[in-house]
Amino acid sequence: MELTFLGTSAGTPTKARNVTGLALQHGKPKHWYLIDCGEGTQQQLLRTRYSVMQLQAIFITHVHGDHTFGLPGLLTSASMNGRSEPLFLIAPRPVRTFVEAALGNTDSSLSFELKFIDSEAEDFAWEDNAFKVTATALSHRVSCRAFSFEETNLERQLRQDKLLADGIEAGPAWGKLQQGVDVVLENGTLLRSDDYTTITRSPRKLVIGGDNDKPELLEEACKDAQVLIHEATYTQEIADRVGPWPQHSSAANVARFAESMQVPNLVLTHFSSRYQFNPNAYPHIGEVESEARGIYRGNLYLARDFETYRLDKGANLVNVTSP
Amino acid sequence: MELTFLGTSAGTPTKARNVTGLALQHGKPKHWYLIDCGEGTQQQLLRTRYSVMQLQAIFITHVHGDHTFGLPGLLTSASMNGRSEPLFLIAPRPVRTFVEAALGNTDSSLSFELKFIDSEAEDFAWEDNAFKVTATALSHRVSCRAFSFEETNLERQLRQDKLLADGIEAGPAWGKLQQGVDVVLENGTLLRSDDYTTITRSPRKLVIGGDNDKPELLEEACKDAQVLIHEATYTQEIADRVGPWPQHSSAANVARFAESMQVPNLVLTHFSSRYQFNPNAYPHIGEVESEARGIYRGNLYLARDFETYRLDKGANLVNVTSP
Repeated sequence: MELTFLGTSAGTPTKARNVTGLALQHGKPKHWYLIDCGEGTQQQLLRTRYSVMQLQAIFITHVHGDHTFGLPGLLTSASMNGRSEPLFLIAPRPVRTFVEAALGNTDSSLSFELKFIDSEAEDFAWEDNAFKVTATALSHRVSCRAFSFEETNLERQLRQDKLLADGIEAGPAWGKLQQGVDVVLENGTLLRSDDYTTITRSPRKLVIGGDNDKPELLEEACKDAQVLIHEATYTQEIADRVGPWPQHSSAANVARFAESMQVPNLVLTHFSSRYQFNPNAYPHIGEVESEARGIYRGNLYLARDFETYRLDKGANLVNVTSP
Repeated sequence: MELTFLGTSAGTPTKARNVTGLALQHGKPKHWYLIDCGEGTQQQLLRTRYSVMQLQAIFITHVHGDHTFGLPGLLTSASMNGRSEPLFLIAPRPVRTFVEAALGNTDSSLSFELKFIDSEAEDFAWEDNAFKVTATALSHRVSCRAFSFEETNLERQLRQDKLLADGIEAGPAWGKLQQGVDVVLENGTLLRSDDYTTITRSPRKLVIGGDNDKPELLEEACKDAQVLIHEATYTQEIADRVGPWPQHSSAANVARFAESMQVPNLVLTHFSSRYQFNPNAYPHIGEVESEARGIYRGNLYLARDFETYRLDKGANLVNVTSP
């Protein structure tokens, strides 16, 4: 399972960092998922191995432009490239209005079906053959959600001893049972996959936050998560100077929550455009990092554009960015 | 007077070329003008010396997304940076609807006044203290305009002999007359700037086309223009293969027109995303260039992203891109 950060700047882009976009790919299908789509996301994707042709679903945390303005271009480019597969757009309802107005006023149409799903519906949940996705309401200037991606359909190991003991010889039935499919034999016997297979590990779960000044709202979602990806727009000092109105988190704020929950991996992103990664620049992103590291004892990363992280089946998160 | 190409790809961006955007700056004021604003234009600007804070007016040739989808992000970034100066948006009316829907559905507002002007109004003309801008209807799948930028307020030379002969001594009146301002002396005498100054050169004029399959529509506009900037989406061979429906020009098509009009400088842009500048790539942009060069005998350029061209007062157009 891999994550590639397409943009890590809050509000406005910088020369080195685009506005928010995150690609998530499960190891199993070729499909991948996009979480948020700031302007320029399609251009960032051209520098990765991800193609809009294989994109399965787009999740939008909230309506703000630095999370949504890339949608019309990404969708029409997929169309110009001849995409025919339906695409899910899982977002607050005004995002649908925005996209429809963008297409409708620019002589644009899509070659594929855009399946809009309201991410803010009370009973929201979405799943495909790789993930079950749920949403958690956050605290921001506008309605905003975190999305929790939890693996489904984990790989099964056949209980060969039990199969042979029950007189079921190796054959096509074994393959189906291993895929989680129940089988009815010619003699009418029902074999349940759950009875003849075992799942040897826990599902991986990632919680991907939107903009939010109350990380503690993610307590329930983070209980069984191995990774929390959360905004840390600035240090506490800057947060205090800016005041509460933008409703963003400081690094300290998020670190305190992640430490209290013992989330094993924390990735911070969505840094104010004032921060730079250039070692001689001020203010330097190192200030955000030190603040978080002083509080959170787990595996901490500060995301940069085009960095790729791999979450292995043992739930270790490693930066695997190719140089 | 300088031009910087912010995007030279048609329809969809490539790794090396963004969708359409062109910055025009007159030598005189700090103000500059943006012609078309595809997605990612604000990001491209971060790599130039142009700032959205000094932008005077945006001209949109037509509604298509590769010319308009950068507007919401550019405008909201200018706002987040604290712009207060009004900004002109000169565009077809649906662009206004698109921009208003983008802002209205994403909790966005602007810190400055957006002065919308319908570029397709019958009597359209716009001017400031540097340029007079007029529009010419083109032939495309949707209503589309070329914009002609003609210099106004050319620098004047004082006719000192005549001033002295008429008994007008050097003083503040001389300065005003040189700036084109008429002066009333204390004794009530009216001095007309036109009588006491001369303009020693012709105004420079650039014609900047939108998408268009009939360059000959620009005959009138090009009569006294020194520069034509026009799309050449592909070679004639590809144009024939694609068929007429996209309503784009081939290089041959534009070159033939520019040659017939004896336009001294021709800059081609808006190349199909299939074309590459990498010397080993196929199809190579050199095919478009050869086709144009075989027909047009003037000063020909094929624009690349981030190239800057200077048009001097003698109307010579030179590539002055810094390496």
